[in-house]
Amino acid sequence: MNIKIAYSNTWKKVLIILFVFTKTVDVFAQKTNSTLEKSIESKIDSIIPLLTLKEKVDMCHAQSKFSTKGVGRLGIPELWMSDGPHGVRAEISWDSWDYAGWTNDSITAFPALTCLAATFNPKLSGDYGYNLGEEARYREKDILLGPGVNIYRTPLNGRNFEYMGEDPFLASKMVVPYIKGVQKNNVAACAKHFALNNQEHWRNTVNVEVGDRALYEIYLPAFKAAVQEAGVWAVMGAYNKFRGQYATHNELLTKKILKGDWDYDGVVISDWSSTHDTMEAAMNGLDLEMGTGTDGLGTNSLNHYDNYYLASPFLKALKSGEIDETVLNDKVRRILRLMFRTTLKSNRGFGKINNKEHHAVARKVAQEGIVLLKNENSFFPIEDKEGITIAVIGENATRSMTAGGGSSELKPQFEISPLEGLKARYENVNIVHSMGYATGPSVYDAVIPSKLNADSLRIEAVKIAKNADIVLFFGGLNKSHLQDCEGADRTQFNLPFGQDELLNDILEVNKNVGYILMSGNAVEMPWLRNIDGLIQTWYLGSMAGYGIADIISGDVNPSGKLPFTFPAKLEDNAAHSFGVSSYPGIDQEQNYKEGILVGYRWHDTKKITPLYAFGYGLSYTSFNINNVKTDKKTYLPNDKIKVTCQVTNSGNLDGAEVVQVYVGKPKSKVKRALKELKGFEKINLKKGTSKTVEVSIDASDLAFYDESISDWNLEKGDYVVYVGNASNNIIKTIKINIK
Amino acid sequence: MNIKIAYSNTWKKVLIILFVFTKTVDVFAQKTNSTLEKSIESKIDSIIPLLTLKEKVDMCHAQSKFSTKGVGRLGIPELWMSDGPHGVRAEISWDSWDYAGWTNDSITAFPALTCLAATFNPKLSGDYGYNLGEEARYREKDILLGPGVNIYRTPLNGRNFEYMGEDPFLASKMVVPYIKGVQKNNVAACAKHFALNNQEHWRNTVNVEVGDRALYEIYLPAFKAAVQEAGVWAVMGAYNKFRGQYATHNELLTKKILKGDWDYDGVVISDWSSTHDTMEAAMNGLDLEMGTGTDGLGTNSLNHYDNYYLASPFLKALKSGEIDETVLNDKVRRILRLMFRTTLKSNRGFGKINNKEHHAVARKVAQEGIVLLKNENSFFPIEDKEGITIAVIGENATRSMTAGGGSSELKPQFEISPLEGLKARYENVNIVHSMGYATGPSVYDAVIPSKLNADSLRIEAVKIAKNADIVLFFGGLNKSHLQDCEGADRTQFNLPFGQDELLNDILEVNKNVGYILMSGNAVEMPWLRNIDGLIQTWYLGSMAGYGIADIISGDVNPSGKLPFTFPAKLEDNAAHSFGVSSYPGIDQEQNYKEGILVGYRWHDTKKITPLYAFGYGLSYTSFNINNVKTDKKTYLPNDKIKVTCQVTNSGNLDGAEVVQVYVGKPKSKVKRALKELKGFEKINLKKGTSKTVEVSIDASDLAFYDESISDWNLEKGDYVVYVGNASNNIIKTIKINIK
Repeated sequence: MNIKIAYSNTWKKVLIILFVFTKTVDVFAQKTNSTLEKSIESKIDSIIPLLTLKEKVDMCHAQSKFSTKGVGRLGIPELWMSDGPHGVRAEISWDSWDYAGWTNDSITAFPALTCLAATFNPKLSGDYGYNLGEEARYREKDILLGPGVNIYRTPLNGRNFEYMGEDPFLASKMVVPYIKGVQKNNVAACAKHFALNNQEHWRNTVNVEVGDRALYEIYLPAFKAAVQEAGVWAVMGAYNKFRGQYATHNELLTKKILKGDWDYDGVVISDWSSTHDTMEAAMNGLDLEMGTGTDGLGTNSLNHYDNYYLASPFLKALKSGEIDETVLNDKVRRILRLMFRTTLKSNRGFGKINNKEHHAVARKVAQEGIVLLKNENSFFPIEDKEGITIAVIGENATRSMTAGGGSSELKPQFEISPLEGLKARYENVNIVHSMGYATGPSVYDAVIPSKLNADSLRIEAVKIAKNADIVLFFGGLNKSHLQDCEGADRTQFNLPFGQDELLNDILEVNKNVGYILMSGNAVEMPWLRNIDGLIQTWYLGSMAGYGIADIISGDVNPSGKLPFTFPAKLEDNAAHSFGVSSYPGIDQEQNYKEGILVGYRWHDTKKITPLYAFGYGLSYTSFNINNVKTDKKTYLPNDKIKVTCQVTNSGNLDGAEVVQVYVGKPKSKVKRALKELKGFEKINLKKGTSKTVEVSIDASDLAFYDESISDWNLEKGDYVVYVGNASNNIIKTIKINIK
Repeated sequence: MNIKIAYSNTWKKVLIILFVFTKTVDVFAQKTNSTLEKSIESKIDSIIPLLTLKEKVDMCHAQSKFSTKGVGRLGIPELWMSDGPHGVRAEISWDSWDYAGWTNDSITAFPALTCLAATFNPKLSGDYGYNLGEEARYREKDILLGPGVNIYRTPLNGRNFEYMGEDPFLASKMVVPYIKGVQKNNVAACAKHFALNNQEHWRNTVNVEVGDRALYEIYLPAFKAAVQEAGVWAVMGAYNKFRGQYATHNELLTKKILKGDWDYDGVVISDWSSTHDTMEAAMNGLDLEMGTGTDGLGTNSLNHYDNYYLASPFLKALKSGEIDETVLNDKVRRILRLMFRTTLKSNRGFGKINNKEHHAVARKVAQEGIVLLKNENSFFPIEDKEGITIAVIGENATRSMTAGGGSSELKPQFEISPLEGLKARYENVNIVHSMGYATGPSVYDAVIPSKLNADSLRIEAVKIAKNADIVLFFGGLNKSHLQDCEGADRTQFNLPFGQDELLNDILEVNKNVGYILMSGNAVEMPWLRNIDGLIQTWYLGSMAGYGIADIISGDVNPSGKLPFTFPAKLEDNAAHSFGVSSYPGIDQEQNYKEGILVGYRWHDTKKITPLYAFGYGLSYTSFNINNVKTDKKTYLPNDKIKVTCQVTNSGNLDGAEVVQVYVGKPKSKVKRALKELKGFEKINLKKGTSKTVEVSIDASDLAFYDESISDWNLEKGDYVVYVGNASNNIIKTIKINIK
């Protein structure tokens, strides 16, 4: 409002008053914001007494596959949820797992989370979350069932592709902006699966034994960050047991740590049918039981939701006084709180879907997450040169990677295959294509595909390879059962579907081979020394083909870094080095014998050279890291350790590099990993330019979890700071001291 | 905000300024409201250029049974609709008419609209609309497909129960608050079926011929009120043809009158598959084509929505230039405008469902809409006296009246049957029950039910009747095919299912019989003189049994008035008096030969005594209407005619009466009806008290539609004002003059 006033003495006073008045209004508005949470709580206070016991219990369990009851008479809405972490799943039927057959549920498939983690770019993770959340909002979902932040422990875990790698620090830094981004849309994110759901094999029954130190240092930090830094509104319990009790209603995990120590004020949702006991569910902090449709009685009767552990049996125990109503009221309070943050939030936006911005973010994440692993003789990038023939071989050049994989399966509006992406990019090159092998449809619980028509496909592929200038082999895993797929683990570390043999046959007729590895897991690559180029492309969703062509063509300079280690052989992996009692367990009992030495911590400490190390990834340009310094030599526990270095792009292309700062403690009262990631920074550098990068580390983050005091312990003494651009490429080490 | 300030001279000025400032803010807020529409239009202006031709066309037709496409990339939402006029229908599958099998779609069934009209209580209609709209909002519906305001022309029309009776003035007064009530929830009401869908027989093909005068005076006024007084946001086109062109895209109806003369700014939606021609639909004002799933090609292919008249064929005509894009833009503008009023409205409420308030309104409408037609020997109310036996006979005492009936079928959370209602009310009386007859399930297109087990049921019913003190016969029609049901008309005026014979058998053993008539239509009652009590209860929804028991017990004094005439025999009805060319037509050609003389206009003018007259309804108390006056004798065209009278409740019970004011013009250049309803007022009166009632009539409302000038014509000269409490019970006539 513009107010024009002729000045006078009185008017000046008036203006001052107006100014004060306006400021008061401002303060009032700010106060409104700051008291918002309080006002939600008082609203909840006024609602709970209006609800009947039955209505409250009904809010604590499913009414359909993906929704829960509201209280219509009071205008309390239902809650609608959807898988999953990298896109909003198609509509599922009310009461069966069949797709509902709607035509309005095609979405943008974003790259799976291993790719997002590989970007080492938290800001991009924020964009990812915001854009994904916009799609969830448009689809009228109140809770998006992601992100997944279970730690990558074994390359056989069928669900690793949904998670953020092996390092708790990286996962923590990447998950926080994701969650904040989703929740900006007034859609709840749901961090999952809490906790220790590190394999799919026996997931519904396996009992995980792990020491407190590994629990707190490795398996919980990303969840803690989700709760304390991102303020996540929902957390999903895991299927497995922990120390003999199901994780979804585990006294230590959900009651003591999550809701106690971390002051979590959101909703704990079960994984679908991960609940096994009414009393434990009620007392140990589960708020909302969802299910696959089976009930405790194993029937599928019409009212089977009434048989859920947090349904009729819960109501009965409440009525009998076995469980106090305050227990129920706490759950309802949390559910209402989530509603006030989402569906009951006034003036929330309307969301968007399938727009250019979402496609652009999906492509950007693909571009930054793809990892160039090998590039002998500058195999990549490949020029679009007239007269050149590229043989594109391998089923994954054309196979949908959004179909299959389990609950994260998507129905994208479109999915650009690598072959399409290359054809769109290369106008002059002659692209020829042969599948090489075929595996059949992605069926959730299919048997492992046989080598369909193996001979004829192989013969054809070798033929076109022989006549090509360049061979691009698109292989790896896919989203079928026993591959990168929920519900089971991989049964082999080497590549399936006869790819090794096919590749060897091709190499006999053409040495100029680049391998494009699609997987969410490390694989064995016995032919690695015989090929020149290797790119890890993960699962990239709608824009897959464009993102891959961007990297192959050099339109985008690769900058992704591995978020997990590629061991040379399976036994080099920590979990596997202890035999079956460590993975997959014996008689469904499992002991994480490697303790904290997960991933690079194991390889570093045990001096086992990986095939590719955590944090590793090449560029088409070259970077120098110089002048590495810490701001001080000695720090107090509350200090920040400021590590600086100068990064120079010394090559001929613009590019991006990730400065990685690890810290180790040579002498400690406990066995430490040689080094642990404590900071990183991704920077873009024009060719020939330099920048100073600062990475700031809280000294307190150097603490270890001391089982002898059941608390974090920041040991005094000397630490070593490692700075480099990969866990196995440390440019400089600096000794510091904590006093 | 409270601001305490010590007064001083300067402070006084400051306070004045503050006051002015505050007022300015107020004015600003008001201005915000008044410019809201303008701001919506400018938002729409900015959106339309962003849309592709295909996106715009996609907004103009269905994507599923009850939804239309949004534009996800821009965050433009989908639109979701639901039947129907007296409750929100259960969820229908995406692409078939099967129910979706959800468990969250049980609602409050409100009384059908004949009952609402019978209340003669516009305020209650507003409550009805608001409460119904809250249920639609909670169910996330953006458009509620009601109310229906087609004029009751023949008692055989299977869908009369969904409409508001035979009088255009009554329907207009009742429909306006209903629509406003619904729309207060930011849910669009949808007035239907525009126009002249006055029978179900041949509804998809019949061609209606009717003169302009009847069109404007009888069949359009309720729609005009919906548009101009209620500001309805959606109107649904009718199935039938009018003057050779389908009503849904009729040049005169939708283009000239609705969108031209009436300045309607909302959306015209087709009835489901009432569209028959792309060019007519495009050019004559249809905005949104919905369908039953069949397309122009008669196939049910996956992409059949693309074959809709306003889909691919429309797109093709736009591309070829046969239809100008401005035509499309106007449709999209209307659809966007509806969105900004509903789903894109910020801060709209969340709705409620199945709450006490909704049940209370449903019951209140039942109480006020039930009509006491006969009450010899004070048959009603019936006392709850020890030692008395009431025989409740008739299938309708227990039959669901929310199942069946066509698209208005509902899935109520509960439905209190009359028998349940009576049993809940009567603690001392001995209630015995026998069905008497049974008709089988309400199936949409079932054949007419046979007399199932007729003999055994009848014998049992007569037996309990013989031993009872009082017989209450619950009969009438039901919601089966060929009864009160969409898709076909009744084939008989008399009662079905052998009720007449059964009633005669009962009367032979017990003379103390009251008949409770459930229907949305007049029926023949040859046994009427032999019974003492007769109540018309319509279809009452969830609270049916309670509402009926309220009246039978005398807890509530009946006050409903018939919104249509009961002729003594079918041939006495105007439409039927002209033979089959008038109803149902010959070879699907139909002529409304009675012109304006519909309902009581016909009976009055032709002096045909009805069985029960329009506006008629008894009370348990008695009312006197005295001292009837007009404020003047002579009026100018812009004057208001104020009619006053004193109403006295001279009986022993509190009650309500409806003062009805009709006006006629004895000498006119055209044939007039003897009298037409021009005003009414329902008043509640304690026993022994009096009130003065004023009914105000715009003199201009006495105009007739003059076909010779194609406009309304207010004739000068003498008029007669008739005041009474039924169209056939006029207490006083007064001559007035228009100058």
